[in-house]
Parts: sequence; structure tokens; C-alpha cells
Amino acid sequence: MNYRIVGKTTATVMLLEAVCLIVMAFVSLLYRENALPFLYTVAILCVLGGGLYLLTKKANVYSSRVGFVSVMLSWLVLAAFGALPFYFNGGFGNYINCIFEATSGFTTTGATILDEIASLPRGILMWRSFTHFIGGMGILVLTSAILPSSGNRAHYLMQAEVPGPTSDKLVPSLAKSSKILYAIYCSLTIIMCAVLMIAGLPLYDALCVSFSTAGTGGFAVLNDSIAGYGSVAVKLITSVFMLLFSINFTVYFLVITGKLKRALKSEELRFFLALVAVVTVIIGINIYSIYGNAFDCFVNSFFVVSSTISTTGFTIVDYNFWPALSQSLIVIIMFCGACAGSTGGGIKSSRIVMLLKSIVREIKQIVHPKSVNIIRLDGKAVGDDVITSALRFVCAFFAITLVGTLLISVDNYDFTTNFTAVLSCMSNVGPGLGAVGPICNFAGFSGFSKLVMTLCMLIGRLEIFPILIFFSPSAWKKV
Amino acid sequence: MNYRIVGKTTATVMLLEAVCLIVMAFVSLLYRENALPFLYTVAILCVLGGGLYLLTKKANVYSSRVGFVSVMLSWLVLAAFGALPFYFNGGFGNYINCIFEATSGFTTTGATILDEIASLPRGILMWRSFTHFIGGMGILVLTSAILPSSGNRAHYLMQAEVPGPTSDKLVPSLAKSSKILYAIYCSLTIIMCAVLMIAGLPLYDALCVSFSTAGTGGFAVLNDSIAGYGSVAVKLITSVFMLLFSINFTVYFLVITGKLKRALKSEELRFFLALVAVVTVIIGINIYSIYGNAFDCFVNSFFVVSSTISTTGFTIVDYNFWPALSQSLIVIIMFCGACAGSTGGGIKSSRIVMLLKSIVREIKQIVHPKSVNIIRLDGKAVGDDVITSALRFVCAFFAITLVGTLLISVDNYDFTTNFTAVLSCMSNVGPGLGAVGPICNFAGFSGFSKLVMTLCMLIGRLEIFPILIFFSPSAWKKV
Repeated sequence: MNYRIVGKTTATVMLLEAVCLIVMAFVSLLYRENALPFLYTVAILCVLGGGLYLLTKKANVYSSRVGFVSVMLSWLVLAAFGALPFYFNGGFGNYINCIFEATSGFTTTGATILDEIASLPRGILMWRSFTHFIGGMGILVLTSAILPSSGNRAHYLMQAEVPGPTSDKLVPSLAKSSKILYAIYCSLTIIMCAVLMIAGLPLYDALCVSFSTAGTGGFAVLNDSIAGYGSVAVKLITSVFMLLFSINFTVYFLVITGKLKRALKSEELRFFLALVAVVTVIIGINIYSIYGNAFDCFVNSFFVVSSTISTTGFTIVDYNFWPALSQSLIVIIMFCGACAGSTGGGIKSSRIVMLLKSIVREIKQIVHPKSVNIIRLDGKAVGDDVITSALRFVCAFFAITLVGTLLISVDNYDFTTNFTAVLSCMSNVGPGLGAVGPICNFAGFSGFSKLVMTLCMLIGRLEIFPILIFFSPSAWKKV
Repeated sequence: MNYRIVGKTTATVMLLEAVCLIVMAFVSLLYRENALPFLYTVAILCVLGGGLYLLTKKANVYSSRVGFVSVMLSWLVLAAFGALPFYFNGGFGNYINCIFEATSGFTTTGATILDEIASLPRGILMWRSFTHFIGGMGILVLTSAILPSSGNRAHYLMQAEVPGPTSDKLVPSLAKSSKILYAIYCSLTIIMCAVLMIAGLPLYDALCVSFSTAGTGGFAVLNDSIAGYGSVAVKLITSVFMLLFSINFTVYFLVITGKLKRALKSEELRFFLALVAVVTVIIGINIYSIYGNAFDCFVNSFFVVSSTISTTGFTIVDYNFWPALSQSLIVIIMFCGACAGSTGGGIKSSRIVMLLKSIVREIKQIVHPKSVNIIRLDGKAVGDDVITSALRFVCAFFAITLVGTLLISVDNYDFTTNFTAVLSCMSNVGPGLGAVGPICNFAGFSGFSKLVMTLCMLIGRLEIFPILIFFSPSAWKKV
């Protein structure tokens, strides 16, 4: 293992985090709040991150392994220091709570240990939402976008940080791809913010909600999430943008470059939108007896489906009281999650499509043993290694969800609570069913369980392998 | 599709079922009970099965597709006619209930719709247990064992009917392999019956319990399952034999032929036994506060673990009141299930081992991209196609469990009940958690949900693909 390059990447991330926190300190001062929680953290980050950078700045040789370990370490450091403003604020309880909250932010999960949100300082609440924005597209993708590119650094970092079975390049240069991705990301966020302001939200709320939506995170600034604005327009705008941010960003690139037709032909996109439509309609019908009118059913169903499948986790209603059919659908779309190459989590639509195609191929192969069946996605042949790797991911995802459920069941909550809490963390959704339902929070769990779920969030966001590699002794051996 | 050969296979199974039912009619007469439910069914089977056989007896060309479709059709027919004695008896309610009970029997699930069991006629109860015995090793394996072998018939039928990622041959001739399998199967059953009688059980109970254990089924003749005998010896004997029947039968063949060392080296066996030991100890400690003495904890824990991981489903205790940790472990070992090539269900230990090895290989591959990593099981290299197929199976198993959960949630039971009911059917265990816990039954579900779970039992027992192929239009096209 090349320790220096790992150190350099981590140091860069720490300095970048310090820059973000300086902005948050200004926000605090703007609202005449105590900016010290941010300034303390900035000071710590500058000393440690700056020192580390000076020690390692000459390192420059990347490899796949270095990429995975760097990404994992960077995310751990990001969360550990990102938790400090919460800790210095004092309203979050012990440091484990702060780590849980910060990881939940960066991994765009949105699960919270807070009972009372609205009374916290505005700077702290914006930092909470901004962690979603940073984590959504990935901090290392950001470093690739803004720092001069060096060697195949961007390749190895994106491989480990951008979700999805394959890392698509928009343009031949990955550093340039990162720039384009961030440009699309920021533009969509600004558009959303503007639309929310037109719908009547103040700038501060519009910004925070947009940051949280962009990262498909789910931290809100009001105690009752999006329901608190009491506006149907805000609910619908948020629903639509949650979906927009959970679509593969390649689609937007194709649209911008005039390849609309090719964009609309994406099988993943079609599957994803079809799933959203079908589930929205079924839940809408299923909850009709509760709301009694079609429009309310549609708004509630569409919002919950968008929020869950995009793995955002904003809430406007307590679906713990919906019929079991709707709850089961919510659990299933928690597993599915968003599209690859978006800011959303979960298994990802493209992997589900590959799984289905792989099953169909197996059937064809048994029926016609001599036939040659190639799996195609968007017309292109998909290699057996990509299929196997997608299948392995799905298996590991399920298996880790079960193991996580087992570990947190030491707190003796019921099975539904444990299973959906871990699933929600793995898929980076936020709320689950039972005691972690939409109007509940994660405060009741023990410190051990919170750490288990913190790890699950990272496993889900970084798609398993960076974490496994980080903990495998062989990865740390010196080359 | 070669319809004739499918018809011939089905006809053979029907006639074989008639023979079994004649035996049951004798049992009924022995206890001076009404034998008519059996005799009616025998008459129907002889007319329909005999007629079908005469029409198709000349057919003889097998293929993979014919094997899968024949197996599925045979099992459907087996359950449809095996349900008739229950229907004619009248104590089981409507025909859907009878189909559920018969499928639960043949697939060795052991989930029941009966509230009151002990008052049913002894012939009917023995038929219930005997369906486990027939289904455990497979009726088509039985036809291969007792009928003259023809072409590669045995190969294609075993491929579809014997659980596991690969169909092991014990000896070069598959028909001979079937004979050996059934010989081991019957010998173990007889030994168990004898041991139970020594422990004080009457012949009738010993026989029924042995049939149910042999098939890892779980139907009992008393209302409170094995607890009803009130004997610790019976509990321990049953625990041990449940495990013995969930071990790959190849192990016994190796032991008999003097290859004890090779048998003990089986990685699947080691993994399976280690899992049993670890889970037994953890649950034993976890339930200590309930029972207060180590021996009771061990007996209860060992029984529940054996019963669940072997996918038998006998009960001696209501684990719905155990701590959440124990319940989560029970759910996890429901997924794992028994060893391949045994009579048990679930995902199978060998597939879990392959999944773990596949993940380890992926890590190695990322850490050392140029290294060549071959997955070995018991020292032999395992092909990529076998690994992919195991991964696909695990994914499909999870996915179908979730879809099944969704479908039966129309009955508005809670998520834990729905999820564990379907999982229990998929893994052919029997009881689940919540409203389908050890002292409950499946009577409360609607007809639709019962049919969904019936299908899940078949999907689990025949390992998914025979069912998918049966319902795929391409399989039915004439060649």
C-alpha cells in the first residue's frame, strides 16, 4: 500500500471540508449565531489536514487499491470532522450521535437522532443539509473536478466513489467528466432553489431543501420535514426534483448535447420511471380509503414513492398507518433505489435490470441449450464479469442488511424496526417502518447500534467494496 | 416441447402416488377408520394416470427443458391429487386449504392450515407425514431408482429435482445413484424410528415423526408438535436427526465407502456445522434469562436451530417471546437452510460458501488486479458459470421472497408476519414469526395468499428455475 498517496487524498478532502465549513461560519454570522463550532473545526482541519498535506504532497502514483482505500478513509475523516460542529454546538448529545448524524448527512441517508430540529441554529441546520450536497455527488469527484488532474487519479477515485455497476465517462477525460457532472448538479440545485422560492419558500429554507434534495439526503429544517410548509406546490416540486436527482446524470448530458432520443432510450431510465408510475398508482389506490379523495392520494403516494425510491427520505405523512400492501411496496422500492450515476442510493435500477435479464437468459439457455444469449443494455453487450459483479453486489447487499439487522437487534426492537432501519441506512433512505417510521427518529438505539448503522450507511453509499477492502489486511500491505 | 414425454413422466408419478395411497388405505383399515378418502383418490389416479400412461408410453426422448417441465408438472399433479384425501376427509375446509396442506407436505415445508390436528384420523395424519417422506428426496428420483433407466432421463430429472448448485453423482450411473440415495434415506429413517421407539414413542408416532424428519418437513401428529411428547430424549433425538437429514447425502456415501477423511473435509459440511454450533450457543446465552438453567437453554436452542436450519419446522417452544436477537438469528438461518443434496431447503450452505468466496475473490482482484484467483470448493476449482448461477439463485430467492411478501400483504398482516411467512414457505421451513409463529397456523390467510404461498413452497423446493421455465411460453413451443 502506498500510504503517502492515501494521506495526500485524505488531506485534500480535509482542506476542502474546511473551506465548506468557513462558508457555514459566514452563514452563522449572517444570522448572528455562534460561529465558534465551525471555526474550531476549521482550525483543527487546517492544522491536521495542512500538516498531512505537507508531508505527502509529492505522492502521485494511483492504483485501484489506493483508490478504494483513499475513498473509504476520506469518507471516515469527512464524517469524523464533519461531526465536530454538531458536537461543539452541544444539541446533539454525545460524539457517537454526532458521528451518526454527520455520516447520515454525507452518505445522503437523512436518518437523524434529533427529536427537536427547528430550534437549532440556522448555520448548523444548513451544514446538516450541505453535507448531503457534498456527499451526493462525492467529495473526491469534487476534488477531481476542481484540482488539476494527475495521471489516472480521477479514474480510480470515481471507480470507488460514484455509485453504479460501471463508471460511465461522459467525455474521454474523467477530470472533465467530473466538471460536467458538478456543473449539471449545481445547475439543477439552483433551478430547484429558484422554483421553491417562486412557490413561496424563504431563501434559507429553499437553499436547505434544495441541498438535501440534490444529494437525495432528506435532512429538513422543520420538525415535520416537508409537511411543515403546508403547501401542495412545495410537496409536488420536491417530489419531481427528488426524481430528477435520482436519474443517471448521463441522461442530462445527452439531453444537453442534443442526444434526446438516445437519452430517452435508456433502459434503466425507462424501468425506473415505469416502476415509479406503477408503485405510485398502486399505493394511491391502496390508501384511498384513508384520504377519501383522489388528489390527496396522488400527492401523498407520489411524494412517498419519489422520496423512497430516490432514497431521499423527506416525509409529509406517517405511512406507518398505511395498509400493509403500501408498506411492503415501500420496503421493496427501498431495496431498488435510484439509477446508477445519480446521487441516490439502493441497489440501483440498472442492477435490477441486469438481474432480470440474467434470469431470462438462464431460462432461454435451459430451453435452448445450444443457443447463444448475450445480455444487452441499451443495445450494448454487457460482459459476463459486469453481470456477475452486479449479482454479487445484490447478494452482498441483502446479506449485509440481514447481518446488520442481527447486530442491532441486541437493542430488542421488533424485527420490522430492525430490518427496515438497517435497510434504510444501507439504501441511504432515512426513515423505515415501526419505531424508525417517518415521524420517529434513531435516538432510541444504543451507541453500538448507531455505530453499526453508521457503517451500514457508508457501506451503502460507497457500494460495499471500498469498506470491505479497507478492512481487509491484504490491502494495507506495503507494495 | 415434447408433450408425450412430459405426459408419460406425469402419468408415472400419478401411478406411484396411487401405490402410496393404497398403503395409507391399509393403515386406515388397520385403525378401523374410513379408508374411502384414500380409495376414491386411488381410483381417480388409476383412471387418469393409467389412461395418460397408455397414451404416452412410447415416448422416450429427454432434454433439459423436458426435465424441468416434467418435474414441475409432476409436482403440481402430485399436490393436486395428494390433496384429495384431505378434501374427502372434510376436516381441512375448502380445496385451496387442501392444496396448501398437500403442497406444504410434498415440498417438506410443514406449514399447516390446521388448528386441531390430533383428532384427525390416523391414516390421514400418516399421509400428511408421508408426503414429507416422498417429497424430501423427490418423487422423480424415486422413479429413477425403481424403474428401469432409459437414456439420460435420470440426469435431466435429477438436475431439476435435487436441490443444490450442482447435481452430484455418487456413481457414474445416475439411476444407480438414485438407488443408493434412497437406500441411505430409508436406512436413516428406519434407524430414527427405532431410536424413537427405544425412547418410548409408540410405533405409529415414531413412524410419522421419522417420515416428517426424514423429509425435513415438520408435520406432527400432536397439536403441540414435538413438545407434546414431553420427553427431553425425544427432543434431542429429533434435533440430531433433523441435522443428519440436512447434510449432503454424498457425505454418507463417502462414509459408507470408507472415505471418512474426505467426507469430513467437505467445506459445506464444516460451514454448516460451525453455523449450527455458533447460532446454538448465541441463542442459548440470549434466552438464559427466560429459562434460568443452562440445560433447558441448550435443549431449546439446539432444537429450534436444528429445526430451522434443517428447514424442518418442528416446534417445542414459542420463540415469538424470545429476545429480538434470537429471532433475527432464526430469520437468518431460515435463509441459509441446509446443505445441498440433502432433503432440506433454503439457499443451501454451499451457495453461501460460494457467495463468501466470490466476495473474497473480488477483494483480492481489486487489491492485486493482475493476480489470478480461482474459487475452489473441497479443493476442486469451481467454474465461473457455477458461481454466477449460485449468485443468481441467491438474488432470485431474495427477490421472490420480497415479491411474495408484497402479494400476501393484501391480507393486511404486519410486515414481520408477511415477510417471515413467505420466507418460511420459500425455505420450506414451516413456522415464521408474528402471526405465523410456532404455535400459530396459516388458516387466517385468504385463498389468494394461500395460493401465493403454495407457489412459493414449490419455488423453494424445486429451486426456482423449473417454475420459471414452466411459466415461460417459449418452453411450451413444439420442437
